[in-house]
Amino acid sequence: MFKIPKHQVAGHQAIDGNLGPLVDDSGRFYKPLQDDERGTTELAFYQSFSSKLPHHIRGFFPVFYGTQLVEASDGSGLHPHLVLQDITSNHLNPSILDVKIGSRTWYPEASEDYIQKVLEGDRLTTTVTLGFRISGLQIYESKESGYWKPARKEVKSFSADNVRLVLRKFVSLNLEPEPDCCFASTIYGGCSGILEQLLELKAWFEDQTVYHFHSCSLLLLFDKESVLNGRTVPFKVKLIDFAHTVEAKGVIDHNFLGGLCSFIKFVSEVLTDFKVPTIEARFN
Amino acid sequence: MFKIPKHQVAGHQAIDGNLGPLVDDSGRFYKPLQDDERGTTELAFYQSFSSKLPHHIRGFFPVFYGTQLVEASDGSGLHPHLVLQDITSNHLNPSILDVKIGSRTWYPEASEDYIQKVLEGDRLTTTVTLGFRISGLQIYESKESGYWKPARKEVKSFSADNVRLVLRKFVSLNLEPEPDCCFASTIYGGCSGILEQLLELKAWFEDQTVYHFHSCSLLLLFDKESVLNGRTVPFKVKLIDFAHTVEAKGVIDHNFLGGLCSFIKFVSEVLTDFKVPTIEARFN
Repeated sequence: MFKIPKHQVAGHQAIDGNLGPLVDDSGRFYKPLQDDERGTTELAFYQSFSSKLPHHIRGFFPVFYGTQLVEASDGSGLHPHLVLQDITSNHLNPSILDVKIGSRTWYPEASEDYIQKVLEGDRLTTTVTLGFRISGLQIYESKESGYWKPARKEVKSFSADNVRLVLRKFVSLNLEPEPDCCFASTIYGGCSGILEQLLELKAWFEDQTVYHFHSCSLLLLFDKESVLNGRTVPFKVKLIDFAHTVEAKGVIDHNFLGGLCSFIKFVSEVLTDFKVPTIEARFN
Repeated sequence: MFKIPKHQVAGHQAIDGNLGPLVDDSGRFYKPLQDDERGTTELAFYQSFSSKLPHHIRGFFPVFYGTQLVEASDGSGLHPHLVLQDITSNHLNPSILDVKIGSRTWYPEASEDYIQKVLEGDRLTTTVTLGFRISGLQIYESKESGYWKPARKEVKSFSADNVRLVLRKFVSLNLEPEPDCCFASTIYGGCSGILEQLLELKAWFEDQTVYHFHSCSLLLLFDKESVLNGRTVPFKVKLIDFAHTVEAKGVIDHNFLGGLCSFIKFVSEVLTDFKVPTIEARFN
C-alpha cells in the first residue's frame, strides 16, 4: 500500500533502505516525524496553522490529516508520520521546482553549530546573493526523453544565470537548444497564474506576524500534458517544510518576504522577455 | 566657516580632534572621503546615482555638489571631502532617527574579516531579528528639557520593544510618562506622510536592479515646532551612507527591501494604535 514517491525532488528519500517519506494511492503523503526538535516544531506547525492563517492563505499549504504510525521505509519498524496531502497525486508527468526562500536559512534561536553549518551553505549557494535557492527540480521533456532532473550537486552549484535558465526551461515545450518558454504566459502569467499567486502570498507576508518560515520551500508544480489537453488546475504553488518555522513575535518575516520578492522578480522577467501568446491561442 | 554639525546622531564625529564631517552656513555637509575602498565606493555612488535613478527617487538622496579639499577636523591638513546637502539645515530643533536597513550589513564581496565583524554586530543588535536597527537618534522634547538623545551603547542594545517606544516618542509632544503620539497622523500618516514616502521607496526597491545598499541608513527628520507653527515641508526621508553600496548584478536588493518592509510595518503599527486626529485638527 505504501510506496516510495515517484516525484520527490529534494529532501530525505526513502531509497536504499533510508528513512524517507511514503505515499499511498489515496493521495496522501507520509512524512516521517523527525525525533528531535525539528519533528516537534513541524508537528506543532501543522496542528496550529489552519486556525492561525486567513482562509485565502490556507490553500498554499498541504492539507494535514494528522499523524499515523506507519512502517518506516528504513525497516526500523513503526514510526510516527505526518499524514499530508500528496501534492503530486493526479499528475502524470509533473514538472516541479523546489525553491528554498530567504537570504538566510538560519535563525537566532538555533544552536551555534547549526547556525555556522547552515550559514556556510547559504554562502555557497544563491541563498545569500539571490535571497533564495533552487533545492531540487524535475522538468518533463517528452515521452522519449523523460525528465530533466539535474543531480543535487549540480543544483547546489547553480548561479544566478542557471536559475534564470531553469525558470525558462520550466515553462518550455522544447528545452534545447534554447528554451521556447511557450507556456510562460499560461503558467507564470494570467489572472490566476503563478505570478498572481506569488503576489497574493507576498501581500500576506507584508502583514503577517504569526510565523517566521526558516528553510521553508516554495513548491511549484505543473503538468505540461494537462495544459496541452486543456485540462483545468494545471499548476500549484505550495509551501512545504516547517521543521524550522518559529513564532514571529510581532515582527514580519522580512527574510522570507525579501527572498520571495526577489523570486517574483525572476519569474516576472521571464514573462517580460517572452511576451508570447498563451498556449491556448497557439494550439487552437 | 566650517563647523561641527550640531545634529549628527550616528557615524564618525568631528569632536575631540577626530576626523568627522563638517557643515557650513550655506546648507552644505562636508563628509571626509575615506582613503580606502569605502571612500572610492561612496564617491562612485554619488557620481553616478543621479543618472541611474528615476526622477521621483532622486529626492530620497542628499544633493551631491562634488568633492572639495577642506581642512580636516582632526588637524591633519587638507583632505578631500564629499560636498553634500546638509539635511538638517533650516531645522531649528530637528528630531532625527537614523535607521540602518537590512537584516545583514555584510555582503559576499567583502573581506572575510569584515564579514565576521559585521555579522557579529548584526546578531547583537536588532538587525537580524527585525531586519533593521536604530543607529542613532535625537528627539526634541522642549525648550526646557532639550533633546532625548540616548548614548550609543544604549541605542546598540535596543530590543524590539525599545524600537516600538522610540517610534512612538518620535511623534509625541509629551514623551513621558507615556508618549502621546499626537504627531503620528501628521508625520507618519497622510498622503505625503513618512509612511507614504516609505511605500514609494518600497515600490522602487521591488523592481530596481541597479544598486545593493549594504549598511545604508534611512534618515527620518522632522521639526516639531514647524509642525506646531503650521509651516510646510515639516519632515524628510533620506537615504545616507553609501560606502558599501555595490552593483546589483540584475538582482533586486532583497536584503534592503525585506528590512524596509519590516520597518514600514513598525511605523504603520504606531498609526493603527494611535488613530488620533491630525495635529492641525487638534490645534486649530
